[in-house]
Amino acid sequence: MPVRSFMDYCQPRTDLAIEESERLHAQTGREVPGVSVEETSVDDVTITHVHIFSSQGEKAMGKMQGNYITIDAPQLRQRNMDTQAHAAKILAKELEKLMKKSNRRGTVLVAGLGNVEATPDALGPQVVEKILVTRHMTDYLPPQLGRRMHAVSAVAPGVLGNTGIESSDMIRGIVNQIRPELIIIVDALAARNVQRIITSIQLSDTGIHPGSGVGNRREGLNSDTLGVPVIAVGVPTVVGAITIAANAIDLLEERMKGQRESYSLLEELKRSDLNRFIHEVLTPALGRLMVTPKEVDILISNTAGVLAHGLNMALQPDLSPEERHGLLH
Amino acid sequence: MPVRSFMDYCQPRTDLAIEESERLHAQTGREVPGVSVEETSVDDVTITHVHIFSSQGEKAMGKMQGNYITIDAPQLRQRNMDTQAHAAKILAKELEKLMKKSNRRGTVLVAGLGNVEATPDALGPQVVEKILVTRHMTDYLPPQLGRRMHAVSAVAPGVLGNTGIESSDMIRGIVNQIRPELIIIVDALAARNVQRIITSIQLSDTGIHPGSGVGNRREGLNSDTLGVPVIAVGVPTVVGAITIAANAIDLLEERMKGQRESYSLLEELKRSDLNRFIHEVLTPALGRLMVTPKEVDILISNTAGVLAHGLNMALQPDLSPEERHGLLH
Amino acid sequence: MPVRSFMDYCQPRTDLAIEESERLHAQTGREVPGVSVEETSVDDVTITHVHIFSSQGEKAMGKMQGNYITIDAPQLRQRNMDTQAHAAKILAKELEKLMKKSNRRGTVLVAGLGNVEATPDALGPQVVEKILVTRHMTDYLPPQLGRRMHAVSAVAPGVLGNTGIESSDMIRGIVNQIRPELIIIVDALAARNVQRIITSIQLSDTGIHPGSGVGNRREGLNSDTLGVPVIAVGVPTVVGAITIAANAIDLLEERMKGQRESYSLLEELKRSDLNRFIHEVLTPALGRLMVTPKEVDILISNTAGVLAHGLNMALQPDLSPEERHGLLH
Amino acid sequence: MPVRSFMDYCQPRTDLAIEESERLHAQTGREVPGVSVEETSVDDVTITHVHIFSSQGEKAMGKMQGNYITIDAPQLRQRNMDTQAHAAKILAKELEKLMKKSNRRGTVLVAGLGNVEATPDALGPQVVEKILVTRHMTDYLPPQLGRRMHAVSAVAPGVLGNTGIESSDMIRGIVNQIRPELIIIVDALAARNVQRIITSIQLSDTGIHPGSGVGNRREGLNSDTLGVPVIAVGVPTVVGAITIAANAIDLLEERMKGQRESYSLLEELKRSDLNRFIHEVLTPALGRLMVTPKEVDILISNTAGVLAHGLNMALQPDLSPEERHGLLH
Repeated sequence: MPVRSFMDYCQPRTDLAIEESERLHAQTGREVPGVSVEETSVDDVTITHVHIFSSQGEKAMGKMQGNYITIDAPQLRQRNMDTQAHAAKILAKELEKLMKKSNRRGTVLVAGLGNVEATPDALGPQVVEKILVTRHMTDYLPPQLGRRMHAVSAVAPGVLGNTGIESSDMIRGIVNQIRPELIIIVDALAARNVQRIITSIQLSDTGIHPGSGVGNRREGLNSDTLGVPVIAVGVPTVVGAITIAANAIDLLEERMKGQRESYSLLEELKRSDLNRFIHEVLTPALGRLMVTPKEVDILISNTAGVLAHGLNMALQPDLSPEERHGLLH
Repeated sequence: MPVRSFMDYCQPRTDLAIEESERLHAQTGREVPGVSVEETSVDDVTITHVHIFSSQGEKAMGKMQGNYITIDAPQLRQRNMDTQAHAAKILAKELEKLMKKSNRRGTVLVAGLGNVEATPDALGPQVVEKILVTRHMTDYLPPQLGRRMHAVSAVAPGVLGNTGIESSDMIRGIVNQIRPELIIIVDALAARNVQRIITSIQLSDTGIHPGSGVGNRREGLNSDTLGVPVIAVGVPTVVGAITIAANAIDLLEERMKGQRESYSLLEELKRSDLNRFIHEVLTPALGRLMVTPKEVDILISNTAGVLAHGLNMALQPDLSPEERHGLLH
Repeated sequence: MPVRSFMDYCQPRTDLAIEESERLHAQTGREVPGVSVEETSVDDVTITHVHIFSSQGEKAMGKMQGNYITIDAPQLRQRNMDTQAHAAKILAKELEKLMKKSNRRGTVLVAGLGNVEATPDALGPQVVEKILVTRHMTDYLPPQLGRRMHAVSAVAPGVLGNTGIESSDMIRGIVNQIRPELIIIVDALAARNVQRIITSIQLSDTGIHPGSGVGNRREGLNSDTLGVPVIAVGVPTVVGAITIAANAIDLLEERMKGQRESYSLLEELKRSDLNRFIHEVLTPALGRLMVTPKEVDILISNTAGVLAHGLNMALQPDLSPEERHGLLH
Repeated sequence: MPVRSFMDYCQPRTDLAIEESERLHAQTGREVPGVSVEETSVDDVTITHVHIFSSQGEKAMGKMQGNYITIDAPQLRQRNMDTQAHAAKILAKELEKLMKKSNRRGTVLVAGLGNVEATPDALGPQVVEKILVTRHMTDYLPPQLGRRMHAVSAVAPGVLGNTGIESSDMIRGIVNQIRPELIIIVDALAARNVQRIITSIQLSDTGIHPGSGVGNRREGLNSDTLGVPVIAVGVPTVVGAITIAANAIDLLEERMKGQRESYSLLEELKRSDLNRFIHEVLTPALGRLMVTPKEVDILISNTAGVLAHGLNMALQPDLSPEERHGLLH
């Protein structure tokens, strides 16, 4: 297998299926077996549907079988209002498609993972704050409103370091108690490409799988462990500093190639040396640093608004925008 | 039964056993059957132990059988540092007495009830933020520290209006999942006497009973429903506006009595008139208003510090103050 | 002068001209000399224009000569969206009338007084956070937008207890530096009537006069001391606990009168006794307590949104709603 | 001048004099003319005094003449309590040395620059919140306390984007109004070395100079423009993403040199090519990204505590720790 870039060697962690499929595609030059990729564009927004449909695809991608939809809206970073409204609508539509199978009548539980005290990790809890919560109201409302309102509840279970309880345990306990019909989990993600920070939204119907992904399905939050469909919604808010490093080295390599035809920086180092460089030098120096835009607070807060808006539309399709807004105060 | 005051007629809601026993005592002039009251003082702090030990006492008091300890420290309102330290120590000591029976080895779950977005109701969640949470650490620490550290976890389940889930359901779900050995519930209370706002701390071993108190034990959060001991810790942060009204009318009555010996304002109105005045005039006008000091934000934040300090001392008796402080960052 | 009510004796502090004129009118049964009052209604909103136009009126009212406009919208308390939009529009219109004289071309400075850490006092700083600030942009924008955008700056000077500096000194210093053409001061007010909390908006062109109001114009923040027009915008967020007490006593008085024709509770006490009762009993007992609704956090936050919306409309009349919203992110 | 590293070419921005002197020293192998550097260590803390004493040094360093003291405490990142206390004490001592010349009797103004809504930039405002503010109290306290208490005021002027007013204009206006005897400006800094984030504290007596530093002294906040001594205190909270890139390329270069003696990655590219690579490729790709640790919220909050503790000790040398703590509540 030819190596295209230093980034290829590093393979910094990404939570986005689209980035993994891009990497495999670039590396091999052809489609990944067991994985289909479809892309459509509407105005300034691109929607990519990555479908992992075999265990071979699962293994190659390092991600569970299922559907991964990515909504790329670069203008989100500029907090463009039209793009925000547009992205929210597309999110609602894609979410509705994923939910269709569930033919919902009961409660939906929205769970926002992450640490409200660490801004880049606060996306989930911030979305929860803006969700139109109705489960406690459906019985008490005037019938003309009540019948059109779907039961939604929302929790932010916090993080292990603050509660002493795994967020998955927290969610399992609550699910056992209130028996929802569908769970939507919102979380901040890590990307490999800095351009994707705050500009991509990933939906999937595979649930959440802590750690590297594939493995024992018993550990994650998914339909097997929770007994009901689980949809995950996430937005990358950080990239590892190693990504920046790899990016820079690749830019340099490219530049040098442009100058001296036959030269390859990476070929100067043997593969084993590259690996040792990555693991013994680069990772210890940068491994724990995450890169996040300086204006992360306002970006996270805006993105939480977009996600919540999309979720509220999808979860309350029978309410008018005014009714949704009014109920949210 | 002679009536002493307008407050007697109103009987505005109080969550404090001590206020109910004071009222009954004032009304009848003698001890309440089935209830014992013991008072001790240390410096500027008074500790009152109300013990309800029979169903007769339960009925008279409108509160479950069990122990109610009130720590009254008027200087807390002035945010006096010595009083804060003193009150925290007394809280720790009284808490330890209540916990003694549990001979604890397992996890303690601290649950902070209330709405973090409504300051007078945010006491519980604010205490949770300052609890030394260790359940996730006990296995990974150096043995010399680990063996002396007790497992503590902490959650703020939020309020129905924000989550769509009863906080009692949330707690039950979590308890089923992590099986603690003891639960400590922290909540903001309502008092009848404005002087008690932010100056009294009540502990009890009866759990939490939503609504008027006595009734079906199956509904509340207590040892019957949760299967483990439940200790409730609370501080009054509001009084009803009706309390202010009753207080004013009683002060006026007193003043008039001082002037004209035989005169009684209240006797001018018949009992039934008084009741109608209270329920048809005063309650509609003031019923939903709660009185809280203007500087409630800083007072709640300080009091949360005092409670958390006391809880941390009681829950980690084998750690030094420095170790506790260091682990809390 | 006949006394109508216990509230008349107490005369708890109010920052609202309308409440003072109502009191004087009730007391005397006729119009106050030097003061004109005009009332109009639009749907569920009432607008009252109190004009103090002579020094006699100034003395009677205890407020500076000038215009005081009160917008009463009881539905604001229910956070009714239509009422919010309606009230914001009326506020914008009334504000424009007051500003008209200034024929503005230069910068407007919006100053939000109050303590961001004490919720009922945080209205001013919260409004400032939502003001469309443009002073730093007007030079750098595309001409088609820039020419239509007016220069606005906004500060929250904090409170003496947190900064060690009088907010009036802070504002004077900033005004000397940036030389605005108009100053709008936003502040939380105290009312006498609990019904007005969060439901009345008062505008005036007299500036802010710390303490009891009339006095040395050199002390306040007004056109004399700052050299440019000063408009004050405020909303009552608290009433004194004494108001509750007086209210209750008056309700009782009324009830008793209904029963026994010739009886008057207040006549039982001589005027001097009443005064001593108020100052020696009631004030020491309740004087420092302020009453505020329990859900004050959400109410203040909503009201700040209404005020900021109205101000932004009035300050940027040449921008479309979309442009205003877009610039605000 | 020989080139040692890719970082040398990039010269990403740093606010730390120590980093500039390290770079110059590494580049030339000898001391920088017009600059003296002295280093002392106490336990785990290193104190470096960079003194720029001639215009030649000023030009070489790109920083104003004056004293720059850096306190390096790597353990601050681990939130080690002993290191925090230790660093605060050293900060207080170094601050006292810088203040000594001012022979203070009047007010000190502490100004915290930065944006409270963008965490890495919120250090200044967070320090201001923890400063013991006394200017408004000195006249009203019991003489035994009042005489030992020095007048301190504190403001966070906000940022241009939120207020429409330059923070320097805001400070100038306030200074003109309250006439302090000394100004201490606290700000978040940018470093060149990721290891210094949250671990270095820089003090200087040269004030704040927006932009690249040296230039017209009339523009900055310094003794020339404000008429009183200005001390700047800062902590690096971010590094530019370009620093990470340069760092990675240098690590790679080093690794390659280790393998093939005569090889130099950088010599493969000519100097002009390197410059074009930096400005045409790397800067457009990474220029606006800042790197900050993921746990930046808690780190900033802790560091603000350390700075405020140090400042409070230095500003109130005649109060006991208990008195300082008590007054701060």
